[in-house]
Amino acid sequence: MGRWEPDSRGRLARAALELYSERGYEQTTVAEIAKRAGLTERTFFRHYADKREVLFDGSGTLQELFVEAVVGAPEAAPPIDAVAAGLEAVSTMFDGRREHSRLRQAVIAANPELQERELIKLASMAASLTEALHRRGVARSTASLTAEAGIAVFKVGFERWIAAAEERGMSQLMRESLDELKAVTAGG
Amino acid sequence: MGRWEPDSRGRLARAALELYSERGYEQTTVAEIAKRAGLTERTFFRHYADKREVLFDGSGTLQELFVEAVVGAPEAAPPIDAVAAGLEAVSTMFDGRREHSRLRQAVIAANPELQERELIKLASMAASLTEALHRRGVARSTASLTAEAGIAVFKVGFERWIAAAEERGMSQLMRESLDELKAVTAGG
Repeated sequence: MGRWEPDSRGRLARAALELYSERGYEQTTVAEIAKRAGLTERTFFRHYADKREVLFDGSGTLQELFVEAVVGAPEAAPPIDAVAAGLEAVSTMFDGRREHSRLRQAVIAANPELQERELIKLASMAASLTEALHRRGVARSTASLTAEAGIAVFKVGFERWIAAAEERGMSQLMRESLDELKAVTAGG
Repeated sequence: MGRWEPDSRGRLARAALELYSERGYEQTTVAEIAKRAGLTERTFFRHYADKREVLFDGSGTLQELFVEAVVGAPEAAPPIDAVAAGLEAVSTMFDGRREHSRLRQAVIAANPELQERELIKLASMAASLTEALHRRGVARSTASLTAEAGIAVFKVGFERWIAAAEERGMSQLMRESLDELKAVTAGG
């Protein structure tokens, strides 16, 4: 990226999401995304492998934040508290991105291929959380259950956060969702 | 199916799993599956849309059993108990199929496309469980959390059941896995 293309990565991402929302993901070409961003196709492909990956650009960072918080939780913390620390950490990543997240979710909900990619992303997060918990000394099957529970809470908390008219912060909604899972499994 | 092709569906399924295990899923053709089963390709396509669907033939039944048990649980049962009834019901479907399930899982683990299909199957189960719990009067987000927790327990219980040398029944392992999830979320 040279000085003549400030924030080209972000401009491409915003242009892509705008176009996917306006005319549909399938109907949008890379050429159109580049044009809307005032950049070239060549610049697009310097940043993204294809038009799908624009929507999953943050997946790696999300997973890293989650895993690092789980790994870094106090040694004596029970696994569910380590996962709660992870949920807290990822919530910070979404600050100021609620409208973007709403648009992204609507685009994904409208396309089966993108839904599959989203499932793979979440499965990959669950696998790396399982690994992180296992490295904390948690038995593998307990680690897997805890990780899957954490991803379930993440999904539900996220859906609440992007719900129309919702204004509470993500970390609060994640805590509420985790408390609800606790109540549910306690048979309440 | 005529009398001259007794259990052709089952014969095709067994032949397919044998070949996928012996030479790999990708390397196996429908012609080879039909030949191994002593049937024609045409007969294969009367039963299955493609070679992938042979491995997911039981998905619909699995989902129906799970959902029916959730719907049919006592009205006063808390959602997690309705899910426990579902896990109990699906366990009966796997009686006598442990070796088949082990082979199937190994084939799926070796192929990313099949893993994606498996993720979609589980996501579909979670969605229909959410719907079933919601129809029992459970709020949608609680229903979603409970359903996802149930699928997490199913996955872990299933992995335990197919583990080498494991001889305990699936329903026992499902109960143990659910108890473990309860302990985990209680912070134990």
